[in-house]
Amino acid sequence: MNAHPQQEMAHAIRFLSIDAIVKAQEGHQGVPLGMAEIATALYTRHLKYNPQDAGWFDRDRVVLSNGHGSMLLYSLLHLTGYPAFTLDEIKRFRVLGSVCEGHPERAHDAHNGIEVTTGPLGQGIANAFGMAVAEAFLNARFGSDVVNHFTYAFVGDGCLQEGVGQEMISLAGHLQLGKLVLLWDDNQITDDGSTELSITENVAERFRVAGWHVIELDGHDMEAVSAALDAARLDPRPSMLACRTVIAKGIARLQGQRGGHSARLFEEDAQAARELLGWRHGPFHIPADVQQAWHTAGQRSAAQYQAWQACVAALPVAQRAEFERVMRGELPAHWKQVLMDYKHKALLTPPGPSGIFISAEINDLLTPLLPERMVACADLEAPTSHKRGLTAFNAQDRLGAYVHCGVREHVMGSMANGMAAHGGVIALTVTYLAFADYQRPAMRMAALMGLPVKFVFSHDSIGIGRNGPTHQPVEIMASLRAMPNMWVMRPADAVEAAECWELALAHQDGPVSMVFARQSLPLVRHTHTSDNLARRGAYVLHEADCGPRQVTLLATGSEVLLAVQAREQLEAVGVGAAVVSMPCWELFNAQDAAYRQSVLGTNVRVGIEAAVRQGWDAYLGIDGGFVGMTGFGASGPADELYKLFNITPEAMVAQAKRLLKI
Amino acid sequence: MNAHPQQEMAHAIRFLSIDAIVKAQEGHQGVPLGMAEIATALYTRHLKYNPQDAGWFDRDRVVLSNGHGSMLLYSLLHLTGYPAFTLDEIKRFRVLGSVCEGHPERAHDAHNGIEVTTGPLGQGIANAFGMAVAEAFLNARFGSDVVNHFTYAFVGDGCLQEGVGQEMISLAGHLQLGKLVLLWDDNQITDDGSTELSITENVAERFRVAGWHVIELDGHDMEAVSAALDAARLDPRPSMLACRTVIAKGIARLQGQRGGHSARLFEEDAQAARELLGWRHGPFHIPADVQQAWHTAGQRSAAQYQAWQACVAALPVAQRAEFERVMRGELPAHWKQVLMDYKHKALLTPPGPSGIFISAEINDLLTPLLPERMVACADLEAPTSHKRGLTAFNAQDRLGAYVHCGVREHVMGSMANGMAAHGGVIALTVTYLAFADYQRPAMRMAALMGLPVKFVFSHDSIGIGRNGPTHQPVEIMASLRAMPNMWVMRPADAVEAAECWELALAHQDGPVSMVFARQSLPLVRHTHTSDNLARRGAYVLHEADCGPRQVTLLATGSEVLLAVQAREQLEAVGVGAAVVSMPCWELFNAQDAAYRQSVLGTNVRVGIEAAVRQGWDAYLGIDGGFVGMTGFGASGPADELYKLFNITPEAMVAQAKRLLKI
Repeated sequence: MNAHPQQEMAHAIRFLSIDAIVKAQEGHQGVPLGMAEIATALYTRHLKYNPQDAGWFDRDRVVLSNGHGSMLLYSLLHLTGYPAFTLDEIKRFRVLGSVCEGHPERAHDAHNGIEVTTGPLGQGIANAFGMAVAEAFLNARFGSDVVNHFTYAFVGDGCLQEGVGQEMISLAGHLQLGKLVLLWDDNQITDDGSTELSITENVAERFRVAGWHVIELDGHDMEAVSAALDAARLDPRPSMLACRTVIAKGIARLQGQRGGHSARLFEEDAQAARELLGWRHGPFHIPADVQQAWHTAGQRSAAQYQAWQACVAALPVAQRAEFERVMRGELPAHWKQVLMDYKHKALLTPPGPSGIFISAEINDLLTPLLPERMVACADLEAPTSHKRGLTAFNAQDRLGAYVHCGVREHVMGSMANGMAAHGGVIALTVTYLAFADYQRPAMRMAALMGLPVKFVFSHDSIGIGRNGPTHQPVEIMASLRAMPNMWVMRPADAVEAAECWELALAHQDGPVSMVFARQSLPLVRHTHTSDNLARRGAYVLHEADCGPRQVTLLATGSEVLLAVQAREQLEAVGVGAAVVSMPCWELFNAQDAAYRQSVLGTNVRVGIEAAVRQGWDAYLGIDGGFVGMTGFGASGPADELYKLFNITPEAMVAQAKRLLKI
Repeated sequence: MNAHPQQEMAHAIRFLSIDAIVKAQEGHQGVPLGMAEIATALYTRHLKYNPQDAGWFDRDRVVLSNGHGSMLLYSLLHLTGYPAFTLDEIKRFRVLGSVCEGHPERAHDAHNGIEVTTGPLGQGIANAFGMAVAEAFLNARFGSDVVNHFTYAFVGDGCLQEGVGQEMISLAGHLQLGKLVLLWDDNQITDDGSTELSITENVAERFRVAGWHVIELDGHDMEAVSAALDAARLDPRPSMLACRTVIAKGIARLQGQRGGHSARLFEEDAQAARELLGWRHGPFHIPADVQQAWHTAGQRSAAQYQAWQACVAALPVAQRAEFERVMRGELPAHWKQVLMDYKHKALLTPPGPSGIFISAEINDLLTPLLPERMVACADLEAPTSHKRGLTAFNAQDRLGAYVHCGVREHVMGSMANGMAAHGGVIALTVTYLAFADYQRPAMRMAALMGLPVKFVFSHDSIGIGRNGPTHQPVEIMASLRAMPNMWVMRPADAVEAAECWELALAHQDGPVSMVFARQSLPLVRHTHTSDNLARRGAYVLHEADCGPRQVTLLATGSEVLLAVQAREQLEAVGVGAAVVSMPCWELFNAQDAAYRQSVLGTNVRVGIEAAVRQGWDAYLGIDGGFVGMTGFGASGPADELYKLFNITPEAMVAQAKRLLKI
């Protein structure tokens, strides 16, 4: 190692990245070359982590929000000794099947060292914010001996321009999350060129206005970065280190230029960079002393790890068991019984005024049982009612489990992803279904990562009434069902709601959208069964009675009752009609063909949902009947709207008769 | 009228709102009661408008971004004499069929006086921003004599918390749109209660950081409001008037309280307010003098209107014709010929390296022909290439037709809606399809309002290759197709692209999503026809040749070529196979049954699209074959991904054979 060992360590990042990008023939060099010194300072002097045990230690979290600079992260994971990131994998950057993918991808439990999948800008910093919320909450619950870590995020200009990033700045400043530290790659270049093309405001000032601690510094000066990190860790406010950098630093042809962002790199560039920076080692070769220095840095936390293990061991028995339970994501004993009791009791209790209040009641029941559950809501506390018994999580009260997000759905969703990725909490968000689109980019990331976030929605259709079409979802059920790995549940009554909640809580491998009506959901299930009928996604609620089944009526949510009424009308005229309730298509699609066939029947089918038909054809067939919406809604009382749009039992009966030619 | 005629005029808004809300038994009183003085000052002293001719005059634009306070707008439209808003309609607030809907809804060409539909927060101010962009551009093109107006927006806390609002603040400050004026209802209350629950930052400072002119004042002091409006109109920066108000002012039981936002109002509240404020008139009764004062205010612009008409008449003939053409939204002569020539020429030209560059070429050709077209892009100029020949619209150059939006997709979409609602420009946005979700709430509003925005997307599938699943849309085609009133086009080659562009430009009643591949789109159409085959949404590209049609292969975009190859393989073994290209489902669904049947055929059908199956069942049937994606993508070269996910001609052939049992 030469006279500047730290600089050599940074160059190791730089040249691993250059060599990998040259070999891959595409990739983004701007971030890894511009942030090499920042990352080196962070990882070698400040970060608490343990490459051998990425999933469980009270490690600091690091998020690469500017995910296109993925080689920065892969280089760091390789150099610090994360097992998945071998030199061979680095050489396979962007090759199909490599862990060194175009953008960083979280593996289950982040065992590969990647905390969250990033790429769509703004998501990563909002995830980091969610991690910091989870940390503060767990720290308050279990104490600083066992939960006490920082969350760092590398971030570029794009993340800070995105609305979700701006929402995060405002809310994190409000919540004063002192252990959240952003490392801004202030290189004054975006894909289009100079940031002057699209932004004039002083970004550092924007953070200060929001209550952040801001330090402006030279991002290539490791001492300055290190000092700023020390200051950030001491300051009670969230910190933003505005690091002036040169994009693609080291590539003379591109550095500081627009092309530095992602223009192709060639062998000649690599060679020129070696000469410019005095790096005398061949492609992918890290000299032993530099390698050793990085390895040592990676092991720096070993003592902290042991001390932490001792602290966990020293917790009072019950607290330790609880801590380990929530960190493992296990549900407590008896949780199912509470839901079973509710389901039983619901048969005796008249339904409340609103479907969403059923979810609220269940949520209330779980409060004493699931202290790890955090509820976030975007300024709709009263109409969604998922706060009872909870205090607000805020700068004064870190034990509060309810996050008032303000009118900021997007960061709410991304925050929940960060909480779920962090672990130790169950993240649940609540808003109106019409506003699901505002958080949809976050929901997509939850689905892509397989994070067990519970997205609760109310006001699910024209049934909301007079607030009109802007607030009436018609296409949103279909758009959520289109998303791979997203369970979409629309329970018909309190019994199904309890069943869906059970399934949603038990589901650990992906997100769930739980969709509830604003209007009342009278019971459609009148007999208690300990079996969870919703678990197969769809089931026969009523078989044909007056004779063999001639028609199958399929419905979800508030329309199941209409299907039941249609069945009565059909049966009254001698048509054998079954009603199938379909609270979760994704679960139904996973059943075997025989079960699906037994539910759907082999005769005429008519579906009903106060939404567009898209997706229903898979159950109804091209010639099947459907009662629903073909356009946007209108402003008027719910019952009048159902009539106006002809979403009625009579319409179902007419469709059935048309198909049966009677 | 008493000693304070202006105050009486404000109370007229207040009591029309109270009476309507009491009668409707629900509604939001916070905004109309809190902003009555602000609105009165604006309308009676500053606003340039003409109730009798809402659609065409160079009027100032007013947006109610806090759309839940719709009674404010209805009261104003009634009092100033907009014909649709009779007292009878006010009495029918929130009744089905009334123009006084729960949230304000724009009618075609805003002839009802409502510039844009609002409700989902943040959209309205971003629309207003788009209107101000359109105004600045048209002002530069046609001169201040004929285009010179302000855009005002009423706005609440929620709009300013939303990410789209924050993006707007940053970008409007950057662009220095001096004729944009926000009137902030700073009542310190949101639905959840005090704004302290969710925000700490100084909102006024946040605007100042972004380069806005900010004035803080008492929103119930009409003189102060009026003075601030004068100052705002003189200042070259966009202005934000931070108006401290009391929510629900006048309802003693609720004013300044959380309940003031939208708690039920009763007759007793109305009576108490009358006593408190000295309003001695019965429900829905506006005394003649107050009515007359409002009417006079509404006619205040009559002279301006006449002067403006004279200015338009005085324009040089060609300029006047051009001005009237773009304001009517008419396309110029010969525009179709340019596309026809391109379509013809495309047969002779080898395809370029990227599908999106086809759209770029067409866009280039239209530049001299359509000076009214503005292109907005979210920091992807190089990979989407829709800027050639255009200069940037910025604070220095108002004739620039390309808006560098930065990494802010959401405000880009909402801005485009505002431009389209304003008229005189054709608004086109460009980003990657994977980021459509970021602007989806804006797209929904475009569809709801029927605004002719052109949303162009590139990088439409796993075909983008190694950037990986975050950047690979699989569900987004389906989610866009789920949206009512949204045309979704995915052309297969340059010929279809020209046809789709023609259809998109001619479409005036709603938005279009035009979706292009990153990878090359080799020709699938090899013979020129002057007929626009895409106009029917789907058509038979190749009929079965070796015998009667046994199988119909359906495809869109880049997969049409794969279907053509599958057809060759099937025909080679004696299976009569037709290929149907389906560039636009919405247009196909609008064809008559006979045409649809002739295209789809009556035999076996197999579809192919590098996306999820949802929606395809409507054409394929439950038992039809489909080749596509069932989950998210992966990081690797495009050709390897197509093989990995088995999206190949061979997979289509296998499906066809399975169904034909051969």
